[in-house]
Amino acid sequence: MGRVYLVGAGPGDPELLTLKAYRLLKQAPVVLYDRLVDERILDLIPGRRVYVGKEEGEGLKQEEIHRLLLEHARAYPMVVRLKGGDPFVFGRGGEEALFLLRHGIPVEVVPGVTSLLAAGLPLTHRGLAHGFAAVSGVLEGGGYPDLRPFAQAPTLVVLMGVKRRVWIAQELLRLGRSPEEPTLFVENASTPRERRCYAPLGEVAEGRVEVAPPALWVLGEVVRVLGSSPEPEGAQAASRSERPQGVPGSVALV
Amino acid sequence: MGRVYLVGAGPGDPELLTLKAYRLLKQAPVVLYDRLVDERILDLIPGRRVYVGKEEGEGLKQEEIHRLLLEHARAYPMVVRLKGGDPFVFGRGGEEALFLLRHGIPVEVVPGVTSLLAAGLPLTHRGLAHGFAAVSGVLEGGGYPDLRPFAQAPTLVVLMGVKRRVWIAQELLRLGRSPEEPTLFVENASTPRERRCYAPLGEVAEGRVEVAPPALWVLGEVVRVLGSSPEPEGAQAASRSERPQGVPGSVALV
Repeated sequence: MGRVYLVGAGPGDPELLTLKAYRLLKQAPVVLYDRLVDERILDLIPGRRVYVGKEEGEGLKQEEIHRLLLEHARAYPMVVRLKGGDPFVFGRGGEEALFLLRHGIPVEVVPGVTSLLAAGLPLTHRGLAHGFAAVSGVLEGGGYPDLRPFAQAPTLVVLMGVKRRVWIAQELLRLGRSPEEPTLFVENASTPRERRCYAPLGEVAEGRVEVAPPALWVLGEVVRVLGSSPEPEGAQAASRSERPQGVPGSVALV
Repeated sequence: MGRVYLVGAGPGDPELLTLKAYRLLKQAPVVLYDRLVDERILDLIPGRRVYVGKEEGEGLKQEEIHRLLLEHARAYPMVVRLKGGDPFVFGRGGEEALFLLRHGIPVEVVPGVTSLLAAGLPLTHRGLAHGFAAVSGVLEGGGYPDLRPFAQAPTLVVLMGVKRRVWIAQELLRLGRSPEEPTLFVENASTPRERRCYAPLGEVAEGRVEVAPPALWVLGEVVRVLGSSPEPEGAQAASRSERPQGVPGSVALV
């Protein structure tokens, strides 16, 4: 019976794998991976690769993923369960760990660079944000999240919120955020296909902003700190060159 | 004039460095590092090491760090600025990037595994937390943070909050959190000296909980999911063995 490693793949760039994730990917006879794990990372895997991805709230059910994990843990001396970003930030890693432990399978969690950081933005910044919040636009069963506990955070990061962006924006306006607030969508963050879209919250609420999933959505003045949109009040902004080809995942400035 | 890389060192375990951070540490002729960067990571650096640490709201001023960064960027072809966790999560990386850019120094940010994950806990979990918030207990100038925008988050992570834990707990109770809410302090998270302390929020507010900085503080039902404290309502908990020596930074379960 094999140990299962729940491993964070980071935001996309293979160089943002941890040393430990890289070592485990090279050692594992089998890797069960998610839909959003980058192709360049999958190319590093010498062992068997098993796709267990699911769409946002659709496709392969979590119970089916659990069944596959158990089956492979019983067949192999070691299994890597590879997840985009970090396994414990909107990754359902806790559920998978509990399920395996209940079946007597040893589990180890290897944290990764969370996708929340894939935009290359400071989530906190002196004078603008002394903390942040993060919420998923889709609950595990497909339901709509209660946004009240997060609506006042100076920086708010929304994952899996693109399809429901109009509803989310309207809800946040109702809960007191400003229609002028700057927000940034980053499609395919930290990959060569990355695309950025700045839009005030009010425009998103009016359905005037086109974005395609998967995209990270950051709301708050921090999106102007190192971005290309107008200067924020209270902090001096700097112009930022386009991310150079071949160096995704990190933010090259000037 | 050298490029400055703002690099996240992760929570402590050297194996949780990213491949890119490791490569840059090996290449850099000089590394300016913070107080909380792990000794085992510093031991990997072949180049010159310059300590620019500061205590919580004291010691070396941010302006002095800026001056040292500029001085070294002008003297070396490449500089690594190494920060615990991630540079853009309570790391003042945004300020340092802006300062350098204003002086014409090219800057690149390399994200790391944030210290928020060093407890090895799921920050989100089905039925318990559909999002989380994070706040620092100390503002940049030493001031007290406004906790209202974060007080309702189902999972709340507090960094640099140990010295002010009684004030923070009292404030969170006043803002509506329950005195029975489970919380977890993790001293020296992800290092061999790690120590965990579970305490209900009410006990912290009464000044009955002894903790020493640096410690991460996680509030919410998620601390029971994989922990050794009583079972949470709504999710089945599993017993968790002590973290084995030599494998800090990841969470070995059973």
